[in-house]
Amino acid sequence: MANGEGFEKEFVVNMSYFPPNRALMGPGPSDVHPRILAATARPTVGHLDPWFVEFMEDLKGRLRNLFLTRNDVTLPISAPGSAGMECCFSNLVEPEDTVIVCENGVFGSRMRENVERAGGLPCMVKNDWGKPVDPEAVETAVRANPDAKILAFVHAETSTGVESDAKTLCKIAQSHDLLTIVDAVTSLGGIPVNLDEWAADAIYSGSQKCLSAPPGLSPVSFSDAAMEKTKNRKSKVRSWFLDLNLLTGYWQGQGGRSYHHTAPINALYGLHESLVMVEEEGLENSWSRHQKMHGALKAGLEAMGLSLLVEPAHRLPQLNAVKVPDGVDEAAVRKFLLDRYNLEIGAGLGPLAGQIWRIGLMGYSARPERVLLCLAALEDALTSCQAKINKGVATAAAQAVL
Amino acid sequence: MANGEGFEKEFVVNMSYFPPNRALMGPGPSDVHPRILAATARPTVGHLDPWFVEFMEDLKGRLRNLFLTRNDVTLPISAPGSAGMECCFSNLVEPEDTVIVCENGVFGSRMRENVERAGGLPCMVKNDWGKPVDPEAVETAVRANPDAKILAFVHAETSTGVESDAKTLCKIAQSHDLLTIVDAVTSLGGIPVNLDEWAADAIYSGSQKCLSAPPGLSPVSFSDAAMEKTKNRKSKVRSWFLDLNLLTGYWQGQGGRSYHHTAPINALYGLHESLVMVEEEGLENSWSRHQKMHGALKAGLEAMGLSLLVEPAHRLPQLNAVKVPDGVDEAAVRKFLLDRYNLEIGAGLGPLAGQIWRIGLMGYSARPERVLLCLAALEDALTSCQAKINKGVATAAAQAVL
Repeated sequence: MANGEGFEKEFVVNMSYFPPNRALMGPGPSDVHPRILAATARPTVGHLDPWFVEFMEDLKGRLRNLFLTRNDVTLPISAPGSAGMECCFSNLVEPEDTVIVCENGVFGSRMRENVERAGGLPCMVKNDWGKPVDPEAVETAVRANPDAKILAFVHAETSTGVESDAKTLCKIAQSHDLLTIVDAVTSLGGIPVNLDEWAADAIYSGSQKCLSAPPGLSPVSFSDAAMEKTKNRKSKVRSWFLDLNLLTGYWQGQGGRSYHHTAPINALYGLHESLVMVEEEGLENSWSRHQKMHGALKAGLEAMGLSLLVEPAHRLPQLNAVKVPDGVDEAAVRKFLLDRYNLEIGAGLGPLAGQIWRIGLMGYSARPERVLLCLAALEDALTSCQAKINKGVATAAAQAVL
Repeated sequence: MANGEGFEKEFVVNMSYFPPNRALMGPGPSDVHPRILAATARPTVGHLDPWFVEFMEDLKGRLRNLFLTRNDVTLPISAPGSAGMECCFSNLVEPEDTVIVCENGVFGSRMRENVERAGGLPCMVKNDWGKPVDPEAVETAVRANPDAKILAFVHAETSTGVESDAKTLCKIAQSHDLLTIVDAVTSLGGIPVNLDEWAADAIYSGSQKCLSAPPGLSPVSFSDAAMEKTKNRKSKVRSWFLDLNLLTGYWQGQGGRSYHHTAPINALYGLHESLVMVEEEGLENSWSRHQKMHGALKAGLEAMGLSLLVEPAHRLPQLNAVKVPDGVDEAAVRKFLLDRYNLEIGAGLGPLAGQIWRIGLMGYSARPERVLLCLAALEDALTSCQAKINKGVATAAAQAVL
């Protein structure tokens, strides 16, 4: 088989390789704007090309504007949000460090995994799914663990649609000299993420939520204190690929960039275009748009007789957890929406499996056409399975808000 | 600043965001075929979409055909080749495991870093840069370390343009019951990678070399023995993102896929298109094309009076290490090529910095137009810096081979 002779080829699936054109209203990825798709198809250049080095500076500046931060180390990790999470934990957590981890959904438990794999000791603050992180419980945990080094929490829980109070949680951490790690995967671009006001030490997000770029990149930002800790670690970061001491040699290098890994050039074109579009719209306008589309969707859902899981004060406009009416097969509804309308919405996870749908209004999906499609299609789906709903009123209720 | 008011925006660079249209003849990324760029811009779908699940099966089948393997676990890691390397080491190396690492260029020393960060004990077999790994030295090291668990080496050293004898090295490992980790980043698609014939246990590659897809993905493949070791580890894999026990729940899941991370959907469209193109051309034909383009480039370079670093028996056709003539400022030549011809070639690294250029003929860059452009442009550059070369003969010499 020196030339591959005699190797019997694997059967490959006989399918169309052009994907269906879906409306993406699940928990992410969201609809990618055609401008962003077109940007990703621009000509590839080398990762050390002088043009690309200038492009990287521009990209970092726009990311700082988006995070509302002056943090020097603000860059995109060359992998999805889960790798951005791992970058924060693997750099900041040293073996035997106690880390207070707030859990109120899927991503808090993933944080615990990250602490353990970095050699740290997680101390869990558990909250009910569908509720925000309770600051008093955090204060109690912090007092009970005077050796703790880090507080970690999720700003916008994608699994439940809940916002936690990042500013208050960061303040508690700071009053006890803890570093903070914040998950902003679903929040960035959709609701205010005021990084410098919060003074969080490490934050990560994703390209495929409210930025509407394809999945695959994770914007992160680190405070000077976080970088100090990373530089002065007693043991090396357990990941070579995510070691900030090496990554910054490529992204930050003064007077020359050191090759670390080959950056995903075309994906970065897409992320950059999404940042240009956010600036064109205005960050505050983007937040308002998400809020307005949420209001319209909510009006339509409630007119239909459906209700939302999360209390109004803690609802994420970009991720709506909708209660499944009694007796309705939630998976059949999602299949109906996908098959008949090319519309993707999300299922519940963990204890909320079967209880909720998750309807995303993120980035380019947060627009009137999508709100109306979703309401009309959902009405059709629920009608087809004989659910008791108010018919013929949802879209008008939404249009009154739009 | 509750609404981001008062935040003074970062200065962003005033530049054209449409990249220059380069000819990519460095060590990678290579030229991306327009078909592949277009594929990446197809509509994004969800990572659990039924269409996408079928697409994943097709992609895995084509990857198996490319690696010439029947390994069940053959999939693309959602990050560049460096993460593919880390995936192999972080899953297979357990704390205190001795790993014999062959070093004959940059990527052997990166392997050592990976062993250490996984908690293993590297035992280095050092070879001169520009030479292949010496099987006798490996045999000696293996005998001297009866407790060693793994042998790791680079098949095609991108930093020097040298091919090592993967089949022989794997055989040595197998005769001593060692698992093998093979770096095939630059070899896959350009020269034979006969995975099942070698019976290597873990192998990783990159999308941006001889496959000519954009950078950002790393195809990997694992033998049953490698998966056994991963499943039966005493301690968890140090990376959550790269833990094969979790990744296979998404890529391999029988009767349902578990969400692990959000796959980089559009990048995967591009990789898939590159695999379709390799099958259309025929894998053996792709190998022959790389060999033929190398022959033409070599004929032109030698006609000009230049010479190659590596002995003919160990030369990679897809990565040509060309000696810089005495008295020539190699960086000035590269700048001339980039500025005047939009042509990127690579510099030497480590002990070879300033001594060689690295001219890549990978994937879509391995075509007659690129060979001729490179020779003509290099002749112009060397003439402009008064190097002693034979003028007006290079392109004809290449054309005689083409």
